[in-house]
Amino acid sequence: MINQKQIKSLHQKKYREHYNLFIIEGVRSFISAVEANAKIKLIFYTIEFSKKNPWLKKKLYQIPNKIVSIEEIKKLSPVKSPSGILAICEIPEFNLLDKKKNLIYLDSLSDPGNLGTIIRTATWFGVSQIGYSKKSIDPFNPKVVRSAMGSHFNLSWLGELSLNDIKEYEIIGADHRGKSLEEVQPFNNKWALVMGNESHGISDNIKKAIKHLVSIPKIGEGESLNVGVSMGILLHELTK
Amino acid sequence: MINQKQIKSLHQKKYREHYNLFIIEGVRSFISAVEANAKIKLIFYTIEFSKKNPWLKKKLYQIPNKIVSIEEIKKLSPVKSPSGILAICEIPEFNLLDKKKNLIYLDSLSDPGNLGTIIRTATWFGVSQIGYSKKSIDPFNPKVVRSAMGSHFNLSWLGELSLNDIKEYEIIGADHRGKSLEEVQPFNNKWALVMGNESHGISDNIKKAIKHLVSIPKIGEGESLNVGVSMGILLHELTK
Repeated sequence: MINQKQIKSLHQKKYREHYNLFIIEGVRSFISAVEANAKIKLIFYTIEFSKKNPWLKKKLYQIPNKIVSIEEIKKLSPVKSPSGILAICEIPEFNLLDKKKNLIYLDSLSDPGNLGTIIRTATWFGVSQIGYSKKSIDPFNPKVVRSAMGSHFNLSWLGELSLNDIKEYEIIGADHRGKSLEEVQPFNNKWALVMGNESHGISDNIKKAIKHLVSIPKIGEGESLNVGVSMGILLHELTK
Repeated sequence: MINQKQIKSLHQKKYREHYNLFIIEGVRSFISAVEANAKIKLIFYTIEFSKKNPWLKKKLYQIPNKIVSIEEIKKLSPVKSPSGILAICEIPEFNLLDKKKNLIYLDSLSDPGNLGTIIRTATWFGVSQIGYSKKSIDPFNPKVVRSAMGSHFNLSWLGELSLNDIKEYEIIGADHRGKSLEEVQPFNNKWALVMGNESHGISDNIKKAIKHLVSIPKIGEGESLNVGVSMGILLHELTK
């Protein structure tokens, strides 16, 4: 059995890697994990949660579980108002990167909410491979997991990649100085869509490798769109 | 001069309304406020911030300001790692709702980050009127302001609306059971795009008033898209 201190340590990447475990918080993420047959090691839940969610009982047979107070969940949860269920889960094993399938590539993405939204949006549009640069936020950070709402389990591949690993792809990069997607489509090969850092955009060394810089036409005002919104619009166009 | 306690109280809606003031945190929001000639009442900044941002000095002439420690800013800021600049600003006065212009209508939206992203995205696509139901989160909540990155100042109208106020519009609602936008376009009138609550979608009484339920085709997996991403994709299509 994992102890409280070990669970708390899963807020840090090095301990997630050490134990090969991560924290899932919230109903939707938990249900997705169960549906995906994820290796759930431990469930914490409150009495109030189990009363409101009678389906939970059926899930508890084969998995170690413990009734705790909402205060105990708060200590472990990435959010201020947790829903009353929290699970510890093995980091899933993915297949090898399949270069016959499109890819999202994240260059130094830093905000956990954005990464969660990106995973959720990518899987909605059927893009199930996400690579990220060394400096990007870890996808198993509890806040990322929370905001992805279970969509980690819909990915076929997720992992760190270098520029060299994606060179066979038709590399598209989102940048406000880019062309509209319509001008550069169609593509001959499978594409990798690069999304850059929230403040600094795509880094210079990656920009050099990009074949098509694309942007979303601005009709009104503003400096930029949120990175998750931009990617959503680009994927909507790319997968039409 | 406003005191520390009054500023802290601006985290609550009733005090924002009482003083007619709100908190702006972060460089981009601050610059947008200055560019929009917003009525900034007070600027707090750290020495470190002013060293890194020499342009700040020019802005300080006509506005009361104070050098503070980053700890003091942290006490007032909605984020854990504030950038070193925080301003107190008068809530802008908007024109009347112009029914000859399109509108976003938010029904019980609850997440501040989502509302900020929605304001930023709407103004990018040239939709400068945002109405919201009574139960929606207040757009001058500091976390909303932070995530909108100054786009409040690009709005021509922002305020609470009832269903009755929008009945002259062609009402479109985002719902996962809806049709694709292509099937329902073109519209004869100006439209109001309704976005619902993150967990419960559009409420039943508002659904009754909706002429067209629209959704974004799902190609892969997942229960839903994030509300800001959905709106971004719909606005991209609507404003093409």
